[in-house]
Amino acid sequence: MPSPRREFPFSIVGGRLAAGGGILPLMADMGRALADDPGMRMLGGGNPAAVPAVQALVRHRMEELLAAGPAFDRMMVNYDPPRGNPRFLSALAGLLRREYGWDVGPDNIAVTSGGQAAFFFLFNLLGGAFPAGHRRRILLPLCPEYVGYADQGLDLDLFLACRPAVERGHGGDPRCFKYRIDFAAVERALATHDVGAIAVSRPTNPSGNVLTDAEVARLAGLAADRGVPLIVDNAYGAPFPDILCVPARPFWADDVILTMSLSKLGLPGTRTGIVVAPEPIAAAVAGMTAIVGLANGTIGQQVVLPWVEDGSILRIGREHLQPFYAARARAATDAARESLDAAGVDWALHAQEGAFFHWLWLPGLRIPTLELYERLKARRVLTVPGEHFFFGLEGDWPHSRQCLRLNVSGPADTVREAYQIIATEAARAAAG
Amino acid sequence: MPSPRREFPFSIVGGRLAAGGGILPLMADMGRALADDPGMRMLGGGNPAAVPAVQALVRHRMEELLAAGPAFDRMMVNYDPPRGNPRFLSALAGLLRREYGWDVGPDNIAVTSGGQAAFFFLFNLLGGAFPAGHRRRILLPLCPEYVGYADQGLDLDLFLACRPAVERGHGGDPRCFKYRIDFAAVERALATHDVGAIAVSRPTNPSGNVLTDAEVARLAGLAADRGVPLIVDNAYGAPFPDILCVPARPFWADDVILTMSLSKLGLPGTRTGIVVAPEPIAAAVAGMTAIVGLANGTIGQQVVLPWVEDGSILRIGREHLQPFYAARARAATDAARESLDAAGVDWALHAQEGAFFHWLWLPGLRIPTLELYERLKARRVLTVPGEHFFFGLEGDWPHSRQCLRLNVSGPADTVREAYQIIATEAARAAAG
Repeated sequence: MPSPRREFPFSIVGGRLAAGGGILPLMADMGRALADDPGMRMLGGGNPAAVPAVQALVRHRMEELLAAGPAFDRMMVNYDPPRGNPRFLSALAGLLRREYGWDVGPDNIAVTSGGQAAFFFLFNLLGGAFPAGHRRRILLPLCPEYVGYADQGLDLDLFLACRPAVERGHGGDPRCFKYRIDFAAVERALATHDVGAIAVSRPTNPSGNVLTDAEVARLAGLAADRGVPLIVDNAYGAPFPDILCVPARPFWADDVILTMSLSKLGLPGTRTGIVVAPEPIAAAVAGMTAIVGLANGTIGQQVVLPWVEDGSILRIGREHLQPFYAARARAATDAARESLDAAGVDWALHAQEGAFFHWLWLPGLRIPTLELYERLKARRVLTVPGEHFFFGLEGDWPHSRQCLRLNVSGPADTVREAYQIIATEAARAAAG
Repeated sequence: MPSPRREFPFSIVGGRLAAGGGILPLMADMGRALADDPGMRMLGGGNPAAVPAVQALVRHRMEELLAAGPAFDRMMVNYDPPRGNPRFLSALAGLLRREYGWDVGPDNIAVTSGGQAAFFFLFNLLGGAFPAGHRRRILLPLCPEYVGYADQGLDLDLFLACRPAVERGHGGDPRCFKYRIDFAAVERALATHDVGAIAVSRPTNPSGNVLTDAEVARLAGLAADRGVPLIVDNAYGAPFPDILCVPARPFWADDVILTMSLSKLGLPGTRTGIVVAPEPIAAAVAGMTAIVGLANGTIGQQVVLPWVEDGSILRIGREHLQPFYAARARAATDAARESLDAAGVDWALHAQEGAFFHWLWLPGLRIPTLELYERLKARRVLTVPGEHFFFGLEGDWPHSRQCLRLNVSGPADTVREAYQIIATEAARAAAG
């Protein structure tokens, strides 16, 4: 007779981190599809594409490490210090100094176990309950913002988000829209709340919006005025992986935290995130790595080390990733236009300025995209419903139930098939 | 003119995790020595040794992955689901069922980014503030216990530790001692505190003590009586890496959480921890991985996958690690005996039942080992002072200032030199 299944009570914080809001069921759907359903069209998730030229570079580098014998052995058998591999930290600081003139040394850098872990540390370091008894929040000046942040707060209600202006007909194309930071709203939020940091992803995940240099400078100024850091999540942007279609100057200053990652370069399996920050914050992140997880994976840093030392890591995006993802995005846009127009659906895509997503707006939808997600899943198209990206907002915004994020980096045929199904289901859902 | 260095206030929890008690300065000492001082004798830290036979296995397996092309590419470019690679989870569950008859499936397992991260999740899931308003603590029945736990609590005072009985002259050797769980103290602690889990490392880090099967069964019974899980940290033990010198039966039951790791097998650079637990707890750990860090590194799981599938991972310890570490430990014990006896120091070593440390007790010391640590460092011997392993205790215990942890897995000559210096300094410190 099987013993009864035990129930163990969970702490408040543990239970919240373990339950993880709405995103865990979506990840479970993805996991099941990957394991059991090769026919599922995978437009959910943020997996980078298999870009052959980059995969060849990675394979070649691993062969080089193996041929060097001791280098490979050391990489596998030795813990790095919690801050990261000293040679990697020096090489990266040197590259940033040389290329951008930033006043950074190894003490301004901390490696983390992937970019997401960096945000868990940074948000809970700069927001939450403070010793003097007050609570500080993280301000997201442009919502929708990355879903992976939403449940990372050890405190409830860690985030405070601003609704952007929505510019329809961007670039003269009626099917293109673009979010613009509403600086009046940002200033109101700063005036009425205790804010510990301002945070943006650039390009923005999900929308692919790229904040202009002027917008970034203005946010940095507002943050500096309050004495809080501006956090720029550069998971998809410049200096690397540089999956951008518009010019954007990498930005760092002595009160800015810039995060980078090797994931979208093509190495998510190595879990390598990078924080470039004022020294006390980089030291705090290294300390949190030590306490939470002892050390980081060594392999990602060793794979890219020579490319950081000789600067060639800055060319991988331009030479290999940009052309690859631009071609996929163009094909996906053609598929969207054909399918959605043919189905008579009202639609618009956010300006594709970076990353590899379509952020599809369906203003005529009569059901929430959470429901559309389920209908699409039943027809074997996996997406991410937009609702999950609109956290921290005050008040209701119908727009938050009218968007889908689609990873369009996969094979063009798959994306085309998916768009035909999306168009059919969107037309049905617009009809009521 | 350089701008003044900015100060950013930190949250209560963030500041605590970032400062990390006393262990961070020790890690910084190690990092500096590794980077700048090749002459430092490194007996601090828990880095496994470079065991040639195991390194050859790892190199060979990586060559095999590269030769298989797509397998290597997929490992680098794809995120695994947060719980871990499905094929790895199935293989491990199968191995544990076959070998030990445990009723486990993939839903009982969750991979984490190293073993330490598993404990951050488990301790804060089962201890801390609970929804009904009470607080629960983690009971450590045998103190000294692993220093890496000490600062992992999001809540203050998460741990409650019991002082063991100290058996001098263990095995008839006056220079050997052994800790024994004081079950009366454990039962008193359980009766007077709200405990959310009982946790032990087996072998114990730092002492190398291996709880007997009877002790483990008795702890499991006490935990079951209270309806809380028993957590067994198997970083050094059986089924793998199996760095044991005494028989010890791997133990799991449906209210036991067993953690394992690939680090001491020789793969710390891959950051691969494994939790085998009741389904709701394994699911919670997977959820916490998703929220905190999105996914785990893929590489460690792929390196060992065929060894898990064919069961050969269970032979690596017996065939390669045990003989290697046993030889190093014997040489180190000879060095200890010669140096310390010659210096006329009162000393004893904990019974070496597993792992690769010496836990050296110097009862005649007139200074705390924190101070001895500094004197040894000045003479280029890095150790870990014992004080850091005695957290969660009530009352003062002089023994806690009389022990050093020494990693004796390094070259015999280095360990011998280190012991000569330790003996000299211990004699000086015993004289006053």
